[in-house]
Amino acid sequence: MSNIFFQLSEVLRDRRNANPNSSYVASLHEMGLDKILEKIGEESTELIISAKNNNSDQSREEVVGEVADLWFHCMILLSHLDGDVAEVIDCLQERFGISGIEEKASRKK
Amino acid sequence: MSNIFFQLSEVLRDRRNANPNSSYVASLHEMGLDKILEKIGEESTELIISAKNNNSDQSREEVVGEVADLWFHCMILLSHLDGDVAEVIDCLQERFGISGIEEKASRKK
Amino acid sequence: MSNIFFQLSEVLRDRRNANPNSSYVASLHEMGLDKILEKIGEESTELIISAKNNNSDQSREEVVGEVADLWFHCMILLSHLDGDVAEVIDCLQERFGISGIEEKASRKK
Amino acid sequence: MSNIFFQLSEVLRDRRNANPNSSYVASLHEMGLDKILEKIGEESTELIISAKNNNSDQSREEVVGEVADLWFHCMILLSHLDGDVAEVIDCLQERFGISGIEEKASRKK
Repeated sequence: MSNIFFQLSEVLRDRRNANPNSSYVASLHEMGLDKILEKIGEESTELIISAKNNNSDQSREEVVGEVADLWFHCMILLSHLDGDVAEVIDCLQERFGISGIEEKASRKK
Repeated sequence: MSNIFFQLSEVLRDRRNANPNSSYVASLHEMGLDKILEKIGEESTELIISAKNNNSDQSREEVVGEVADLWFHCMILLSHLDGDVAEVIDCLQERFGISGIEEKASRKK
Repeated sequence: MSNIFFQLSEVLRDRRNANPNSSYVASLHEMGLDKILEKIGEESTELIISAKNNNSDQSREEVVGEVADLWFHCMILLSHLDGDVAEVIDCLQERFGISGIEEKASRKK
Repeated sequence: MSNIFFQLSEVLRDRRNANPNSSYVASLHEMGLDKILEKIGEESTELIISAKNNNSDQSREEVVGEVADLWFHCMILLSHLDGDVAEVIDCLQERFGISGIEEKASRKK
């Protein structure tokens, strides 16, 4: 189920070369790096505001939606730099030292 | 491999109740929502700056590292609000309409 | 000349009650606090990006323009909270300990 | 009274060449552009959070303090780029079309 990141990554790679008039992703690539970074700044601000508005289970949906938007635009950025979400996953794995084996071991504790 | 998100999510849940003196994650929870949001603002700014500095394969590592940091702190935020990365994954899947079945079909094209 | 801040402040107070269809400032007030804060997040991101693009006297104009936009929206925020730029000026004066008298004295050094 | 901006601007110019060990401003210049921009991102996030926390006259002090911090770091940025707050003031004046003469006229209304 978490393969959504790899699926999205593939979709984003395809869309990069789509028609900017019909694809939001392609239009961002065409507008260039600065526009993509502006979107990341916007989404991060919206996330912060929505988290301050959060006070019930219902509104957590909004926070979750803002995290999804932010991550989506981060993936577009990676794609724009010829990178991939796989690199982020490797980095998280390295940084937090959780290999499949270690995880199993830690679960036994 | 992408199960790192679920593994991290579980680790973050554990750490929330760890000793704030020995766990960075626990200390963020103790300092509270505003501190977590400040970190998200910081990481998002660092991501934008690193992307502007990016001009080679080598420096993409920095961008990737900043995305990892930003996502990590988003996961701490979700945990702070009693949420979970699974909700973000559901949201991405819903928003971008990629179920496992559709994905398989689209790959055949 | 620096009275521009007080002049602007007065203009912003007037515009708060203007017709939202014809006044940008009034429309921001009508949309509310979150929209004003989103604008501050946007302008701050644009400032950061423009500063990274800056590499000549010509492009400093862009940075200056972004600072002006950011400060303008901060003044709208203050107005939305029934505050005023005079409070910021008092705060800067207090924090940095520069009264007119001290200033004169320091110039003599 | 609003000459605080010019006074601060002069002080910032002096401090740029001060000892980084004893001057915060000098230390920021030494750390360089990216560090200054990180501070602007931080201060802008703190401003947004404080505005969401604002719900009385008392806490507006916090918002005002955050605006002051943000503007202060914008002035350090301008100084780092060999610029000056006077350029921002010119820009605000040009953009919002308020010359001294127009102002006087509008006050008569």
